[in-house]
Amino acid sequence: MDSAEHHFLDTFFYPRSIAVIGAGRSPDTLNFNLVGNLVDLKFVGRIYPVNPNADEILGLKAYPDLRSIEADIDLAVVAVPATKTLEAVKDCVAKKVKCLTLVPGGFSEIGEGGKKLQNEIFALLREHKIRAIGPNTLSPINSRNNLVISFTRVQKLPQGKLSFIFQSGLYEPRIHWLFSDFHIHLSKLIDLGNKMDVNEVDVLEYLSQDAETGCIAMHLESIAGDPKEFMQLLKSTTRDKPVVVLKSGRTEEGAKAASSHTGAIIRSSDAVVEAALRQSGAIRAQGLDDFFDLAKVFEYLPPLKRNRISVATGSGGEGVIATDLCQTNGFILAQLSAQTKTRLRSIFPPWDIRVNPLDIGVCSQFNWGTNIRNIFLEAIADDCNVDCLALSLDWLDGSSIDVDKLVEPFRELIRKGKAVVTWITDPQVGKEVVEQLELSRIPVYTSAERAIGALGALYRYHRLKDTD
Amino acid sequence: MDSAEHHFLDTFFYPRSIAVIGAGRSPDTLNFNLVGNLVDLKFVGRIYPVNPNADEILGLKAYPDLRSIEADIDLAVVAVPATKTLEAVKDCVAKKVKCLTLVPGGFSEIGEGGKKLQNEIFALLREHKIRAIGPNTLSPINSRNNLVISFTRVQKLPQGKLSFIFQSGLYEPRIHWLFSDFHIHLSKLIDLGNKMDVNEVDVLEYLSQDAETGCIAMHLESIAGDPKEFMQLLKSTTRDKPVVVLKSGRTEEGAKAASSHTGAIIRSSDAVVEAALRQSGAIRAQGLDDFFDLAKVFEYLPPLKRNRISVATGSGGEGVIATDLCQTNGFILAQLSAQTKTRLRSIFPPWDIRVNPLDIGVCSQFNWGTNIRNIFLEAIADDCNVDCLALSLDWLDGSSIDVDKLVEPFRELIRKGKAVVTWITDPQVGKEVVEQLELSRIPVYTSAERAIGALGALYRYHRLKDTD
Repeated sequence: MDSAEHHFLDTFFYPRSIAVIGAGRSPDTLNFNLVGNLVDLKFVGRIYPVNPNADEILGLKAYPDLRSIEADIDLAVVAVPATKTLEAVKDCVAKKVKCLTLVPGGFSEIGEGGKKLQNEIFALLREHKIRAIGPNTLSPINSRNNLVISFTRVQKLPQGKLSFIFQSGLYEPRIHWLFSDFHIHLSKLIDLGNKMDVNEVDVLEYLSQDAETGCIAMHLESIAGDPKEFMQLLKSTTRDKPVVVLKSGRTEEGAKAASSHTGAIIRSSDAVVEAALRQSGAIRAQGLDDFFDLAKVFEYLPPLKRNRISVATGSGGEGVIATDLCQTNGFILAQLSAQTKTRLRSIFPPWDIRVNPLDIGVCSQFNWGTNIRNIFLEAIADDCNVDCLALSLDWLDGSSIDVDKLVEPFRELIRKGKAVVTWITDPQVGKEVVEQLELSRIPVYTSAERAIGALGALYRYHRLKDTD
Repeated sequence: MDSAEHHFLDTFFYPRSIAVIGAGRSPDTLNFNLVGNLVDLKFVGRIYPVNPNADEILGLKAYPDLRSIEADIDLAVVAVPATKTLEAVKDCVAKKVKCLTLVPGGFSEIGEGGKKLQNEIFALLREHKIRAIGPNTLSPINSRNNLVISFTRVQKLPQGKLSFIFQSGLYEPRIHWLFSDFHIHLSKLIDLGNKMDVNEVDVLEYLSQDAETGCIAMHLESIAGDPKEFMQLLKSTTRDKPVVVLKSGRTEEGAKAASSHTGAIIRSSDAVVEAALRQSGAIRAQGLDDFFDLAKVFEYLPPLKRNRISVATGSGGEGVIATDLCQTNGFILAQLSAQTKTRLRSIFPPWDIRVNPLDIGVCSQFNWGTNIRNIFLEAIADDCNVDCLALSLDWLDGSSIDVDKLVEPFRELIRKGKAVVTWITDPQVGKEVVEQLELSRIPVYTSAERAIGALGALYRYHRLKDTD
């Protein structure tokens, strides 16, 4: 594939026209939001709601059925119950729609009856060479053309280079958080659902070539295609783009639960998957918190190829914890330059203290009202011995926080390519602070563990890549 | 010790009178807050600010020196620079104060000079049988008499049965969060600092006998006393009260950092500490997040002696993750009763789904506007096959959340002694929800990992205790 434009998934992510079959007309239905999101977010393309009982939905002309639409349809969103899906798919075939997203559940995940119906649909689509995602999916999402297929009303869609692959609607109950408070910058998102047709190999192949995708975060329960082919593709993808993988269904009970909600059969033991993922150069997330933490660090930060770290905390005790974390994550405490030491001495208590980790709490006590954070950040920006920085925002130094100027002292660090992670215990206290920093791609975690853990993954990925 | 009343630490936690030597008179100094907290929080006892340049501080008569105070002083808070501390301690000896808290840093943690000065102070106090905490401490704190020694102004001090032992002021930069947004219910808190005199053995001994302490969360960098004695004491304490231990300075670099901020020498390798802690029955926290997560679960929840768990999540995908977590944490997915299954079928989609883990997201899609959470909670409350419950609050079911009535369906579960943990991804969205639930001792974490991880620690502690 020379260009992403030729891949069949392009039509899913860049449809010129969408028909929503089963569009809701009442604002208190989930299906209403399918059209609502496209209208509110100003989807770049034409929208055709299909509902036999409505003339108009959200100011758009509604159609009683697919064939009443005169225009060509690139993407048909089938959002009718499972029992009516085959009929809707037949209409799609007749209309010659280019591709389908099958929203309803009630297929292979519910047992033999559902599986039979799913197979029948698949056979029909295959016969007519129409590709489909799902069933049991809510997607695709693409920030470039404001395409959102979701039951939940999305307020905004911040553009960026991170693409998500989900096995299921795991993100759906937290979609507000993901696109708003989490400050993630999205390229594309797909939810594979039952993987009747399109599976993780197709999407990974597409995203690996997608110029708008810089990193990939992938949630998997099962591997639908050939595991070897998948791992090979993963390996070639991670040479260019970091891929964070959350594999769930790791335990016997978890695998059973997976089978009952997307019909997936998990054939490989967790140890096999673990080994294969390690060999592929993917970054394995240890849980859902970790998955989003890692996605953020790879999306926000430039490559980190060296490991000399500077640490500053609000208390000596946290400095010890942070130092433990640095060592276990492969960092070396940077030997700060003589010049940096001189500059930092201006904020010392009346005795000599360590400069790395620096206890900003004790500095504050003796320099109350001085903006110690800025003095520290400026000194570290100038220090060639420092590759990266882990910084607590919890301490109070008696200087007022000017949210507008907060980011300034970080700019020089960023300009010099130093990777910065920060943390603040209570995001409620620091909501505005978090927002300002993350707008400037400075990730703010809730603890040293999470911040330094994420930075460690970034370093390990780039080190491994260089030695590959 | 028959009663906590006879222990020497009682005077530290229940002083009838406090002198603050070095009380600040200007609101923009940290030392001002030492008196400010006692006044604002209405400390139950008399307060004597000592400052040669003030007649009055916060409406209290200020004294030029200690000897000008006519009354007896139980606790003297020494908050003058290190260089003036010996002199202040001599005044305390002359005044026959009962005990001391030595706030300043600049002693054993800064090297030989500081260590010599600390030793001199210690010799003097020992000669006069006066006990002291610190130097390099900000404490004690006791919710029963509104005693707070802190540089940070504390807004409230919620009473409960959890006591903290800190090696240092690790909590100080997050004290607002700890006492407000974290919804912890505190008995006592002590920061040991340089452990010149009072150390972890003294405090653990005291708290193990303290009727107002039901569980203990302990942060340690070094063990100052005899490690065997400490581990023996820990073992006997954990028979009655859970003790969560966060041991930092685990790595070589971390140990060096520890030595430079409290003067502690870490003599034992982390593997030795790990093994000793396991044998003692203590619950080891893996990091600071985990430390507070575990403190909360032990403070909030009743003993959990059986492991049959019910799980409900906002998506099938999260159900798989939660199931993995249950299995790795020693839980067994409960076999729900026939009656529960019948009740849950009323909220099913038009096909059969698993009841455990229950995918409330898919139930919502087909029962939009029904309060599915309540139906689920009521069914589980009545099910004798369920010992505990892990519940996501992330899903949306279209029913409005009445914050005042939110806790009602949980009451029956609590009454029947079932342990409940919940999670909500974004505490900013759910601030009021979190507050209401936690007021009723239903812990709300930010993810399934953290919720089920904490519940697992609770179960393992009580199972181990029973088989001991």
